[in-house]
Amino acid sequence: MTETTAPPETDLVLTERRGGVLVLTLNRPDRFNSWNEELERRYYALLDEAEADPEVRAVVVTGAGRGFCSGADMDDLQGLIESGDFGAMVGREPPRHRPLLFGKPLVAAINGAAAGLGLVEALYCDIRFATPKAKLTASFSRIGLIGEYGVAWLLPRLVGRSRALDILLSSRVILGEEALRLGLVDRIVAPELLLDEAVAYAEELATSCSPAAMRVIKDQLLRTEDLTFAEAIEDGDRLMLEALNGADFKEGIASYLDGRPPAFSGLAIR
Amino acid sequence: MTETTAPPETDLVLTERRGGVLVLTLNRPDRFNSWNEELERRYYALLDEAEADPEVRAVVVTGAGRGFCSGADMDDLQGLIESGDFGAMVGREPPRHRPLLFGKPLVAAINGAAAGLGLVEALYCDIRFATPKAKLTASFSRIGLIGEYGVAWLLPRLVGRSRALDILLSSRVILGEEALRLGLVDRIVAPELLLDEAVAYAEELATSCSPAAMRVIKDQLLRTEDLTFAEAIEDGDRLMLEALNGADFKEGIASYLDGRPPAFSGLAIR
Amino acid sequence: MTETTAPPETDLVLTERRGGVLVLTLNRPDRFNSWNEELERRYYALLDEAEADPEVRAVVVTGAGRGFCSGADMDDLQGLIESGDFGAMVGREPPRHRPLLFGKPLVAAINGAAAGLGLVEALYCDIRFATPKAKLTASFSRIGLIGEYGVAWLLPRLVGRSRALDILLSSRVILGEEALRLGLVDRIVAPELLLDEAVAYAEELATSCSPAAMRVIKDQLLRTEDLTFAEAIEDGDRLMLEALNGADFKEGIASYLDGRPPAFSGLAIR
Repeated sequence: MTETTAPPETDLVLTERRGGVLVLTLNRPDRFNSWNEELERRYYALLDEAEADPEVRAVVVTGAGRGFCSGADMDDLQGLIESGDFGAMVGREPPRHRPLLFGKPLVAAINGAAAGLGLVEALYCDIRFATPKAKLTASFSRIGLIGEYGVAWLLPRLVGRSRALDILLSSRVILGEEALRLGLVDRIVAPELLLDEAVAYAEELATSCSPAAMRVIKDQLLRTEDLTFAEAIEDGDRLMLEALNGADFKEGIASYLDGRPPAFSGLAIR
Repeated sequence: MTETTAPPETDLVLTERRGGVLVLTLNRPDRFNSWNEELERRYYALLDEAEADPEVRAVVVTGAGRGFCSGADMDDLQGLIESGDFGAMVGREPPRHRPLLFGKPLVAAINGAAAGLGLVEALYCDIRFATPKAKLTASFSRIGLIGEYGVAWLLPRLVGRSRALDILLSSRVILGEEALRLGLVDRIVAPELLLDEAVAYAEELATSCSPAAMRVIKDQLLRTEDLTFAEAIEDGDRLMLEALNGADFKEGIASYLDGRPPAFSGLAIR
Repeated sequence: MTETTAPPETDLVLTERRGGVLVLTLNRPDRFNSWNEELERRYYALLDEAEADPEVRAVVVTGAGRGFCSGADMDDLQGLIESGDFGAMVGREPPRHRPLLFGKPLVAAINGAAAGLGLVEALYCDIRFATPKAKLTASFSRIGLIGEYGVAWLLPRLVGRSRALDILLSSRVILGEEALRLGLVDRIVAPELLLDEAVAYAEELATSCSPAAMRVIKDQLLRTEDLTFAEAIEDGDRLMLEALNGADFKEGIASYLDGRPPAFSGLAIR
């Protein structure tokens, strides 16, 4: 375990505000930002704070140094095998898929390897920017593990069934351009521009799009996966009526007709 | 409101028959074919007629002038805000997603901007042809609105979850070539050839494919989204037995063995 | 019927072992490997054997001669029409989608035309390699038939809704490169390299990936299509705990830390 040499907990994830965008940087660069409990706790706590802060309208997550996130810390996995105490791996609170439930846009800037849990965390984000040399791999099948923490549900809905099989069965390493072609990432950007372009995209959401509407849309796109078409129509009608009665609709139409940028209110969730 | 200057209702959608294909042209070119109740009523009534007419085997929908459909008419939206009477937006009969239920192939020829409801109408079509400069945008999030009329259910099933999030959260404008890469449209064609190629595709369906089979296939592809695999197998077996006992199977095999084009009967629905 | 001139049943599908990979070759080359009961019975029996044999870790299926599989044998279809006895088409045991339930990786090497049932069989495989000139077509709509044997459920989950509609409504012929762009196949390989590359991919699965994990992953990717996200999370947690307690997890971690290839045990299903 690296406990004694670990930086203070608050440094495990660096934070930086750029306008309405909060940048979170996974910060264990000497271990390629491998995942452990402390890192997870800190990252998820920062997501809670970002949801509650009306001035944060979007979040970008990236990795310090050469990697994005190399997956579960191998020392931890070894310790886990020695102890045989796997109970802590399930029933977590907040759940491991906490980022998928985040109520504001969450953009991944994949600056290097995203492996195993590191790939899963990238897939929990709404949209993925990556460098051409970013290495993406599921890893699980090569160590006897399976589609964990919802990835077996999520991946086919992102890239389709055969590509999900290819990725999860083989755990092969997929580089940026192929990842783009497969739909595993959404944009390829040169390393020196990666963070800026991810932030620029997030900033566009922050300045031009209704925070209330984006929250509903994110919620819709998670829930409609589980709804029948008829249910989704009914659900959408209800949410549309709420939106039509909301302040952002009035402001959206007014600003459009005035030919000026909209001035939507920030959103404090919880 | 533009009521006093509006053309007679029948002109809001132009109609033209080309062989077994009916071309419908949304026709409010001075307003980029923006959507209003009269246009919707006329378009949906023409779809009813096309279903009932056995000589119509496929429909192509396009826009007059420079746009495809710019979405809800802004004057209407403003009037809606002033009146606060949003009730008419839901529980419509026929439902707004009427075109998704159309029992014959429905092809979109997207000749220009498809925005908001205009994009949704394009997505209700089975297959989309577009020009390289066609501008597609969801629009909703920029005026405080959400994934309306089933689009939050439909879009992930067309382009996958992350691309749907990108499109609906950002409402950014997507041009033809990127739309093709995202799977948002299916073919890119030069403007001067767009309608002809969309009609040629529809005409191929009209002359070579069984109208009865295409009706079942369209129905299957909507319903199987909501079925489990086991249910879909059972459903498919039932429909296959019906098809095996149908006239078009006999004619399909006979024409194949004779080396001649099939002579399938036209379909009158209702 | 070709019964009198048919080769002995065992020759309808050729078998060849290459390391941990079993190559199955559909072998009715004079009829472009068209599908009939004997071929199906033999192919599915060989899949049973492959599942039960711990030394077989992956299977590649291809076609003898110039085609992959041209679909249902036309003589059979004609005989079917004459007899009107369609009962044998449904309620089959094993079910026609038997290959979709195969517990080890199943890779298609599509060396030529895959039409109708031949396309469906290719889609039952986990991953598809094809040549640039391979012709893929659904065929059904051109002979009055519909989306059979689960293909109406499977295809949208592979390529999305509009592409599935395009493929099933039109039954148009799609060549290799377009099939790759649509997601209908996963790799394009020159004819002389096709089988070797498909086998190399399968062999990588056979040597580097846990057979137990791959079995679970395949099962997950079929079942999660029918599960809600919440159900999939619970399901994944249960399966992860089982995997964490399995021998392959210990061996996976140990081999990784030792910097040596893993020595996973083979899997005998049933």
